[in-house]
Amino acid sequence: MRVLILGGDGFCGWPTALHLSAQGHEVAIADNQSRRRIDEELQAGSLTPIAGIETRLAAWREIGGRAIDFHDLTIGKDYDGLLALLTSWRPDAIVHFAEQRAAPYSMKSAQHKRYTIDNNLNATNDVLAAMVESGLDIHLAHLGTMGVYGYGTAGMAIPEGYLTVKVETPSGWEPREILYPANPGSIYHLTKTQDALLFQFYAKNDKLRITDLHQGIVWGAQTRETRLDPRLINRFDYDGDYGTVLNRFLMQAAVGYPLTVHGPGGQTRAFINIQDTVRCIELALANPPTRGERVKVMNQMTECWRVRDLAQMVARLTGAEVAHLPNPRQEADENDLAVENRRLLAYGLAPITLEDGLLLEIAETARAYADRADLSKIPCVSHWNAERAAAAGQSGAAVAAE
Amino acid sequence: MRVLILGGDGFCGWPTALHLSAQGHEVAIADNQSRRRIDEELQAGSLTPIAGIETRLAAWREIGGRAIDFHDLTIGKDYDGLLALLTSWRPDAIVHFAEQRAAPYSMKSAQHKRYTIDNNLNATNDVLAAMVESGLDIHLAHLGTMGVYGYGTAGMAIPEGYLTVKVETPSGWEPREILYPANPGSIYHLTKTQDALLFQFYAKNDKLRITDLHQGIVWGAQTRETRLDPRLINRFDYDGDYGTVLNRFLMQAAVGYPLTVHGPGGQTRAFINIQDTVRCIELALANPPTRGERVKVMNQMTECWRVRDLAQMVARLTGAEVAHLPNPRQEADENDLAVENRRLLAYGLAPITLEDGLLLEIAETARAYADRADLSKIPCVSHWNAERAAAAGQSGAAVAAE
Repeated sequence: MRVLILGGDGFCGWPTALHLSAQGHEVAIADNQSRRRIDEELQAGSLTPIAGIETRLAAWREIGGRAIDFHDLTIGKDYDGLLALLTSWRPDAIVHFAEQRAAPYSMKSAQHKRYTIDNNLNATNDVLAAMVESGLDIHLAHLGTMGVYGYGTAGMAIPEGYLTVKVETPSGWEPREILYPANPGSIYHLTKTQDALLFQFYAKNDKLRITDLHQGIVWGAQTRETRLDPRLINRFDYDGDYGTVLNRFLMQAAVGYPLTVHGPGGQTRAFINIQDTVRCIELALANPPTRGERVKVMNQMTECWRVRDLAQMVARLTGAEVAHLPNPRQEADENDLAVENRRLLAYGLAPITLEDGLLLEIAETARAYADRADLSKIPCVSHWNAERAAAAGQSGAAVAAE
Repeated sequence: MRVLILGGDGFCGWPTALHLSAQGHEVAIADNQSRRRIDEELQAGSLTPIAGIETRLAAWREIGGRAIDFHDLTIGKDYDGLLALLTSWRPDAIVHFAEQRAAPYSMKSAQHKRYTIDNNLNATNDVLAAMVESGLDIHLAHLGTMGVYGYGTAGMAIPEGYLTVKVETPSGWEPREILYPANPGSIYHLTKTQDALLFQFYAKNDKLRITDLHQGIVWGAQTRETRLDPRLINRFDYDGDYGTVLNRFLMQAAVGYPLTVHGPGGQTRAFINIQDTVRCIELALANPPTRGERVKVMNQMTECWRVRDLAQMVARLTGAEVAHLPNPRQEADENDLAVENRRLLAYGLAPITLEDGLLLEIAETARAYADRADLSKIPCVSHWNAERAAAAGQSGAAVAAE
């Protein structure tokens, strides 16, 4: 299969590109390296020393024995370039990671909200419009987020994208299946709920084949392929904007920093290991919807954990201390969560769980690069609103001026 | 009250600015005159000869005795200009019309889809982000559309924004109120459903006070104030992109063009006269939500009509012929529609109906300017997808290349 990976230089995109290439697919990457520029903006960076994209690709030609083409394209701005790439290279599938993906980054200031909305929505719409204009029957697999659902589940497992409700009709209450009502918790999550409406529209109006993968929080950084050579190493983010919670705890433990639990840590979230991420993308591409079918939504996660339980697990394993900090996010202190993920399991996903012993390996990776850490980047300094900023001892005006 | 009108040079914005100014409010307009540039792009224009914005405002100072400030701003791009305007002028309310508002225009080509998404979503997000950053407690009233609901109502009246459904819980089926499931019929309508998610998020996260007015199809062009002087005259669009259905029929009758019914004309839609539009905005501003309240949604429409019944009514009144053309839109040939609009009625709206004799007056206005009409602009040449283009004898490639 010929697969174009948008955002293929990023945290999920890069290991996906390698995995699909290793599986024998013909892979090309389009990326404008915006994630590397954001590192510069934030004066933060990957704990692991990631190679430049040309070095990465040269290493993969050498180690993996396969070429991956790279296209320096800004998805959402250079529409003509994207359309030309589709019509000349004629991919069978597109994997769309070309979005700003950090909730705290999206909430840092008005300019960060603006960038996230502008980047993510124009990117998704450009991909869809170009698919239509190309006339090609391309399958689009998009990385969504479990965050589209919000976290109020009334004790029921969150279904895969669609919810059966009963609506009143003249003949009584009748069942209908609707897109799960969106309740995003940040501008970043919001863009994914707006993406879902774009997908619904283009699937209906143009019969595009679209899979939306609502992913949990990724933990781990390395996959089989990224481990093959230091030049292939994947990003490991630990900063308050881009670091994901479990990776942050493991890094904090490695450098002797008290684990940063926001509020009482009662937030329950869905998780997935990065090796399962790339496997899920492969399974999604192998099982596309048919033309005219509604958007296929799958929950790409393997287990749910409460944040304070994760912190305690890491503390037990590593001897780290746990610190409870004011929560910068506008969210409930406590929530329960259960999630259905039958579809990817049925396609053959064999989940890697937190019990599988990988946590210590990740902590060791973090320890190996501990000298690269800038501890001042660990706290989350992005506050969701004036109240949360004030609670953290920061004025609303200061947030606004950031 | 101090009211900033975004898009105040447009079809709904201009009469709203005059009406609110006539009611004694202090009014300012921000507009980049994009609607006038689209006239140039389409080589189409208002049937009525509209004056330039400076002439309009000078006439209103003379006739209405009140000044309306004008700010040449592109909402969604010039964020700093918008924020500076909010913090210096400190409006009590913002009325947001600053969006591309024609469904056919939004579907003309990939570039038109891109423009509509980029313009509308960045505009709405910039307004919301600037409201937050300003720290002012401004009430935002936004012009939405009945088209967010789609047209499948299962025989029940469409409620005002929120739908009570029953969801399954461990203790049985329980009622929940959700945002009405979105089912937009064009990229333009889609942006309004994405706006709704922006509003929901900012109301929740930042306690912004927001009213979303889901408006029906506007008929008529003149209001009490625009009739006062030829320099105040409002737009009257009759072209296939921007002309609204009933106004198009009345213009077509005036120039002896067979009424352009798309398909069998079984589409039922909600309507409102432009005089009621400006009155509804006034009522919405007088009845804002409280801080912390969810988004207040009102259906801004007064009656429902089936398109072929409208055509027959106009034919009866004027002697015009009715022509059935292939439908360029991807939509059902027939639908029923009932809509709740109790809130605006409760606030005092006394609807103007099609039976009130205004139709002939509008037809006379159209006749008065018939010599300005370009009949070649009447057909809708924008097709929703390749199939609809083919049905109209146009190739999908031609649509794409438009």
